[in-house]
Amino acid sequence: MNFGSDNASGVHPRIMAAMADANVGHAASYGRDDLTARAQDRVREVFDAPDAQVFLLGTGTGANALALAQLCPPWGRIFCHRTAHIETSESGAPAFMAGGAQMALIDGADGRIAPHALSARLFDYPQVDEHDGMNAVLSVTNATEWGTVYSAAQVADLARIVRGAGMALHVDGARFANAVAATGSAPAALTHRAGADAMSLGGTKNGCMALEAVVFFDPGRTGVRAADFAFRRMRAGHLWSKHRFLAAQMIAWLDGGLWLDLAARANAAAADLGRIADAAGLERLQPVEVNELFVRAPRGLIAHLRARGLRAADWPDAGDDADRGTIRLVTSWATTDDELRGFEDAVQSFAG
Amino acid sequence: MNFGSDNASGVHPRIMAAMADANVGHAASYGRDDLTARAQDRVREVFDAPDAQVFLLGTGTGANALALAQLCPPWGRIFCHRTAHIETSESGAPAFMAGGAQMALIDGADGRIAPHALSARLFDYPQVDEHDGMNAVLSVTNATEWGTVYSAAQVADLARIVRGAGMALHVDGARFANAVAATGSAPAALTHRAGADAMSLGGTKNGCMALEAVVFFDPGRTGVRAADFAFRRMRAGHLWSKHRFLAAQMIAWLDGGLWLDLAARANAAAADLGRIADAAGLERLQPVEVNELFVRAPRGLIAHLRARGLRAADWPDAGDDADRGTIRLVTSWATTDDELRGFEDAVQSFAG
Amino acid sequence: MNFGSDNASGVHPRIMAAMADANVGHAASYGRDDLTARAQDRVREVFDAPDAQVFLLGTGTGANALALAQLCPPWGRIFCHRTAHIETSESGAPAFMAGGAQMALIDGADGRIAPHALSARLFDYPQVDEHDGMNAVLSVTNATEWGTVYSAAQVADLARIVRGAGMALHVDGARFANAVAATGSAPAALTHRAGADAMSLGGTKNGCMALEAVVFFDPGRTGVRAADFAFRRMRAGHLWSKHRFLAAQMIAWLDGGLWLDLAARANAAAADLGRIADAAGLERLQPVEVNELFVRAPRGLIAHLRARGLRAADWPDAGDDADRGTIRLVTSWATTDDELRGFEDAVQSFAG
Amino acid sequence: MNFGSDNASGVHPRIMAAMADANVGHAASYGRDDLTARAQDRVREVFDAPDAQVFLLGTGTGANALALAQLCPPWGRIFCHRTAHIETSESGAPAFMAGGAQMALIDGADGRIAPHALSARLFDYPQVDEHDGMNAVLSVTNATEWGTVYSAAQVADLARIVRGAGMALHVDGARFANAVAATGSAPAALTHRAGADAMSLGGTKNGCMALEAVVFFDPGRTGVRAADFAFRRMRAGHLWSKHRFLAAQMIAWLDGGLWLDLAARANAAAADLGRIADAAGLERLQPVEVNELFVRAPRGLIAHLRARGLRAADWPDAGDDADRGTIRLVTSWATTDDELRGFEDAVQSFAG
Repeated sequence: MNFGSDNASGVHPRIMAAMADANVGHAASYGRDDLTARAQDRVREVFDAPDAQVFLLGTGTGANALALAQLCPPWGRIFCHRTAHIETSESGAPAFMAGGAQMALIDGADGRIAPHALSARLFDYPQVDEHDGMNAVLSVTNATEWGTVYSAAQVADLARIVRGAGMALHVDGARFANAVAATGSAPAALTHRAGADAMSLGGTKNGCMALEAVVFFDPGRTGVRAADFAFRRMRAGHLWSKHRFLAAQMIAWLDGGLWLDLAARANAAAADLGRIADAAGLERLQPVEVNELFVRAPRGLIAHLRARGLRAADWPDAGDDADRGTIRLVTSWATTDDELRGFEDAVQSFAG
Repeated sequence: MNFGSDNASGVHPRIMAAMADANVGHAASYGRDDLTARAQDRVREVFDAPDAQVFLLGTGTGANALALAQLCPPWGRIFCHRTAHIETSESGAPAFMAGGAQMALIDGADGRIAPHALSARLFDYPQVDEHDGMNAVLSVTNATEWGTVYSAAQVADLARIVRGAGMALHVDGARFANAVAATGSAPAALTHRAGADAMSLGGTKNGCMALEAVVFFDPGRTGVRAADFAFRRMRAGHLWSKHRFLAAQMIAWLDGGLWLDLAARANAAAADLGRIADAAGLERLQPVEVNELFVRAPRGLIAHLRARGLRAADWPDAGDDADRGTIRLVTSWATTDDELRGFEDAVQSFAG
Repeated sequence: MNFGSDNASGVHPRIMAAMADANVGHAASYGRDDLTARAQDRVREVFDAPDAQVFLLGTGTGANALALAQLCPPWGRIFCHRTAHIETSESGAPAFMAGGAQMALIDGADGRIAPHALSARLFDYPQVDEHDGMNAVLSVTNATEWGTVYSAAQVADLARIVRGAGMALHVDGARFANAVAATGSAPAALTHRAGADAMSLGGTKNGCMALEAVVFFDPGRTGVRAADFAFRRMRAGHLWSKHRFLAAQMIAWLDGGLWLDLAARANAAAADLGRIADAAGLERLQPVEVNELFVRAPRGLIAHLRARGLRAADWPDAGDDADRGTIRLVTSWATTDDELRGFEDAVQSFAG
Repeated sequence: MNFGSDNASGVHPRIMAAMADANVGHAASYGRDDLTARAQDRVREVFDAPDAQVFLLGTGTGANALALAQLCPPWGRIFCHRTAHIETSESGAPAFMAGGAQMALIDGADGRIAPHALSARLFDYPQVDEHDGMNAVLSVTNATEWGTVYSAAQVADLARIVRGAGMALHVDGARFANAVAATGSAPAALTHRAGADAMSLGGTKNGCMALEAVVFFDPGRTGVRAADFAFRRMRAGHLWSKHRFLAAQMIAWLDGGLWLDLAARANAAAADLGRIADAAGLERLQPVEVNELFVRAPRGLIAHLRARGLRAADWPDAGDDADRGTIRLVTSWATTDDELRGFEDAVQSFAG
């Protein structure tokens, strides 16, 4: 019963096979190989974005931080939800990569940035002069850290505010596949058609070994020069020399919609966990829209579940007290029926 | 009626005279002159801190950012009040100087960090591993951005939490003289005796031309090596070559308690403004404890005051609406009785 | 005939198989899995360094820049050979990761730092005060960029100078396996026994997919705290979530001395190329000690070789002119006999 | 006999008086005062550059580093002479301010960059891709660190190479007044008419207290946006709040050609020292073109001079040995005839 993280899952067999297939003879290094060109084309097709610039790399933190650094000057502010991964869990990577940028944290229920909270922030802290820093970019995590999704319309609502303030819009898509699977919206609809300028597209949590892409949808509009990003990626040490093994992952992941099948499987497993939790009368903190749920439970129950083999992260929350704590459960493409049954049994055995 | 900023005031004649007096012949550059050594000694005496390391420089943002960079690793978090100058008004200088550090913003009434809010933050975001960044330093602004002060006991309350979390404590003393004058506490009592490791001591707003000091009270305990800070100051371009002119300001400013006399004068002027505002029934947002006050007023009145010559910053606030706005009034050592009377007349002429 | 780079080679089958073997079920993420612990132990054994701290990551530039950032303060200088990869080919990654460190370039024949040149630099630019920056670390590339090696005694000679100046010693081991294979010296003898404090150990060029290690040999002596490096790696985006796939590479690479077998094969292929070049009377710029050679040749011959399928990098050199240019040939574990024969045929066909 | 540095001199009385004159009443802070606007206009007039953007600040290292950061991306290279102050004596400030930029050091006799050495470097290290970093800016120090000057034609020669490589040209003018006085060329002729994009104009060494300007001559061509530089200056802590005291220095310094009178006086004093040294048969390393000279002398003589009150910096040089060392002598506007005679007497008393 490993619901600790979707990062604990392995690599899907089709993706592993594609990496082995790519391992034939020599190939030009640093992304000048044919497979990389094909992978970039595939991303452009899937996103219906023929002019997009696509860069592959190996980690999500690298992708987020480098993408944001391209959109935010050193003296800029990166706006995001208070619970965004880039704020809480990347050890300051965006600030580092962007040369000392600052964050501006926005509230909103269920892990989603509330449009009115974003507007209020921009009102309370108008950018008058150089003292204030520059309001530069909003990063929207879809699916969110709280296992919820933004609809295309919700992204567009934020985009309008962002454009009005002269800012850019970035989508942190570490679990973007889960959002597409959950909403049924096209990748384009959730991103550039809704006003996004760039995204980090994550494969690692969803069946790949180490694969992320940074996509700039409309380099012309945003003033993003691909040449600049190439320098950034290089000097941050994120340009793989044997680049074909990133490309092979991307092609296999997108091929035949595998990425969405895997995400749908993860989402369904989380829905099952939600039903089990509800049946047992456990308190859930958020609706289950993708592959995460947050459960507040008596500390005795949590200890009992762990003793029965549960792996899940502690997730301290304002509502916790001496008696009750909160844990986060994450499913993945590799979650098994046995694990779901195991969770159900463990929960029921406590009540008994 | 210039209440726009204490930075709009000039240089006190005794300080200007001291700079002229220092202008004789050659003097060793870069702080190796005798006057600098004397200035450093004077700071140590005034703070009753014989082991303190004292560095002079010319701007408050430089002092804050460099002091914090010394106390916070690049992967650390700097905790401060939501309205702290280092967060809102320095264009990200601390993040820049510290190599990409992040801020953690804490709430609290009247511009003061609420101890329970600090504790709650540390509970909700415990530092488990490298993803979380390192909880490194708390910066306490005394006097605060909202014209209030921390007592020695209030600083000590925060220091206890900070020590328990393995963090350091920094005092942003851009208006420290005003806090000393207002509380009547000794400089030592408000800083190192209450648990502060370092401070930025500001002279510029209070009668100097361009003078700040960074003081490390107990370099041994905090692992601060003076040699390191010397490199930081140099490479940030903050090592004055003709250093004697910083030193001369410091000596004259501290001499005979001039710094506290000037601060007391500024505080008294703000108290007068507060009485005028109260008499006119204006809404004040904070108690007047030092040299600032925040007034919410009908926008028509604000326009009327400006037309009568008032200079004061707009200060957007959550309570503002279409009819009422908020302005900040700041007094200084150079505020004149004429200005106070002018304000009173202008306010009364609107009612009439 | 791909002699463009050892990065153009693929992944050795045993290493690819080990990655597939690791792909079973869930595993703790971010390096808290058992395989990672085993990989770290294996590195410590191979280097006979039981107290070493070992960190895995995916790129050589990441490894070099992060290791150097740990050894060099932002105001420090990194000394290296004028042709070192960290100076010429990493787009400033060390300066970036170290927060703005400077390089100091030292000369020396055949790609090796000349001890007297290092000493002379330290004499001419003594570190007097904070203006000078801090002489912090020497990085020795072994094998060098010019396809030569340092013996253990040569490393020790440099280490003595470095220690005398209070500096640390780093080994850039992107091709360290080739150096071990060429010298027959033990890994320990070429590193910590000779005075090295830390190294970047490269697997990618030598049979792995994406695998490097940063090793701190004696964290106690150098003041390197493993916890600090963990933060650095994280915030640079170099902490793989599915860390077991780095670990699997390392274990298979070291297992049974595969790493040295592969390096020896690459070295032998380069020796063959050297013999072919010599037989044809081509000018070689350096002795062939590992897997690279540099050939200055008539531009017509270079064009002819390329037309026959040669891939090799142009390598502009002071000795070039309108008639003659310089190319770099690199072999790898995957270089085939066909490629060697192809090169021989192509060279001979020009003469004919 | 203080020839240690021109920074050891004081402030010219007319400049000190101007600062006192500016100290009347309130003035808008942060450079929004009238005096600052006038000072900027004066710089534009003196440089015959009506479109130039002019920023005032207090230190030369700040001016150089911030100007270069504006012209060089984080992944760029700053080219300069091997002995340039920005390389040897600013503790890495340009690398820091520019987010990790690298230096490329060029040789040349008498402290001047040799055009052929610059061209050769660009040939040997062509910029092929992102590995190489970006060749971004050349910084020319005029007058040089070795007390020599570039003529307008010499600057233009370098500018042609720089333009051909797509780079920008910066002039480090810490002693620009001395260069203008020595060459008799117009400020415009030595800078933007010769192809310079930006400069650091130094007043501190030449009669001011703390005053430098960063000037962007043709913001349109170089893509320099003034708004960006304002953010840089702010977040580096180099925006003086009481800005009128920078402006007052600039106006008085330029007024009536005071800056050139003071520089001419310093240059003449150095010429006198040169004649004294020549008469005594001392070895001079460079022609005396401005206010510095470098003398290699028996170590016994150096000790004798110091015992007689000489202040001069040791300047280790490749030609030194156990018997002979090198010192640097710097004159300033404040050098007195007594000091010149004292030096002459001290030299002669050794021979006796």
